[in-house]
Amino acid sequence: MKIGLECVPCFVRQAFEAASLVTNDQKIKERILRQVLFRLANVSFDNTPPFIGRNIHRIVRLLSGNNDPYLEIKKDSNKLALKLMPSLKKLIKSSADPFETAVRMAIAGNIIDCGQGDHIGEEKIKKTISQCLDQPITKENFNELKEEIENASNILYLGDNAGEVFFDRLLIEELQGYPITYVVRGAPTINDALIDDARIAGLDKLVEVVDNGSDVPGTILEECSDEFKRLFFEADLVIAKGQGNYETLSNEQKKIFFLLKVKCPIIAEHIGCQDGDMVIAKRG
Amino acid sequence: MKIGLECVPCFVRQAFEAASLVTNDQKIKERILRQVLFRLANVSFDNTPPFIGRNIHRIVRLLSGNNDPYLEIKKDSNKLALKLMPSLKKLIKSSADPFETAVRMAIAGNIIDCGQGDHIGEEKIKKTISQCLDQPITKENFNELKEEIENASNILYLGDNAGEVFFDRLLIEELQGYPITYVVRGAPTINDALIDDARIAGLDKLVEVVDNGSDVPGTILEECSDEFKRLFFEADLVIAKGQGNYETLSNEQKKIFFLLKVKCPIIAEHIGCQDGDMVIAKRG
Repeated sequence: MKIGLECVPCFVRQAFEAASLVTNDQKIKERILRQVLFRLANVSFDNTPPFIGRNIHRIVRLLSGNNDPYLEIKKDSNKLALKLMPSLKKLIKSSADPFETAVRMAIAGNIIDCGQGDHIGEEKIKKTISQCLDQPITKENFNELKEEIENASNILYLGDNAGEVFFDRLLIEELQGYPITYVVRGAPTINDALIDDARIAGLDKLVEVVDNGSDVPGTILEECSDEFKRLFFEADLVIAKGQGNYETLSNEQKKIFFLLKVKCPIIAEHIGCQDGDMVIAKRG
Repeated sequence: MKIGLECVPCFVRQAFEAASLVTNDQKIKERILRQVLFRLANVSFDNTPPFIGRNIHRIVRLLSGNNDPYLEIKKDSNKLALKLMPSLKKLIKSSADPFETAVRMAIAGNIIDCGQGDHIGEEKIKKTISQCLDQPITKENFNELKEEIENASNILYLGDNAGEVFFDRLLIEELQGYPITYVVRGAPTINDALIDDARIAGLDKLVEVVDNGSDVPGTILEECSDEFKRLFFEADLVIAKGQGNYETLSNEQKKIFFLLKVKCPIIAEHIGCQDGDMVIAKRG
């Protein structure tokens, strides 16, 4: 999906927040902000939001000299998620439908998204988990996803953010034995998960973990490594987490289940739901 | 006061809102937004917020072909304010200190500011009026203002927004007989009051009303007419309404009482108060 004009103020806010996170030096912050404004003034609005987000966060990294501004935030998210795991595992095990509950948890974990605002704290995550259990998602969605998983011979699971990787693990634990490859970004971009985050969550012990070779906070195939593209084309089912993957892949001719917490009215409109909803959206 | 980097995302939001108000044509909106981004990328951040706001709203007017995008909103604000006047007049008359209550009303009216967000409705105005009566403003501030008014031989009252002009009238009615000149902007800019708005509020029946010859949503002396500059230099007391006048005049060597509803954390920090406060700030 293309960006909307409504996205432009949001990008500038995001650039300001990222610049403020990475440095206290007003001159560097100003340089970042001016460069972002200049890029936004000139970039084609036919691009997807993650394409533009990537360009913004490249500017932030380049002009601040910090290759991974969200590293500490990502570490904090991983620690926090790790702490929550025992109780969430119990919750899944004791639930009437462990698969459904695990899918709901994977969606709840998608709240840990720094593209949408400040650092997401424990309280917000717990609140989202609790809401996620009651969120009306039709049983049919879960059944259809389960059926596709059972019939697939190659499943690609596209992760999204650090911290969230632990919530993905909850679902992947329920899917032991299925042919899943878990994918992370290829280089730092916002708080998106990298190979290290997947390893910290122990995902590499359960499934194959690869990176997509790209620093886009989403999945733009043209920007990904040949290895990832091969995996993508060969997969007969893709599970894609988060807004960035939805924004970049929703028009692909591929069987994709998007699992996400909607955090923006433009995406809500595109999906046909409400801002704040937790969604299983099937495409292809 | 200079703009802060925090102001930049706010300016882009304001540009998007103004563009959306003035047209539904996506191409024109995009052209406005790109031009604003380009100007912001290049403008000196040593300027005041109203200088930059003026440039943004000039772009909106120029590229939309609409010389007064907020005209209908201004009319609505005037109508709404007119409707509220009888009860507010009664409130002032029956209060223990009509001067203080009228000053509080003049400050409450400053909520009608479209630079800070969407159209301000009846509910928000009524809530602000009610809050304003309880807002802790030290008695000393009122006494000092009253004393300066009594001793002044030339009082310049700088208005701010349409609708708000009626609230200014409530105060000016309490100051009958004092040598007041009421000033409005010289050309359309956001929802700022023009001569027509002052006349609709009947201010021209009570005091002299002039415009400052400028389309800045504040008072940049270099941009004002010679007539206004003469009045400003001759005045021995200035009462200045709103954030825009504060942002552009707070460093002037002049006895100025700023009456405003603070609607932004940057201004709150500059004044030394909290965002949302209603303030009498004396300078000079």
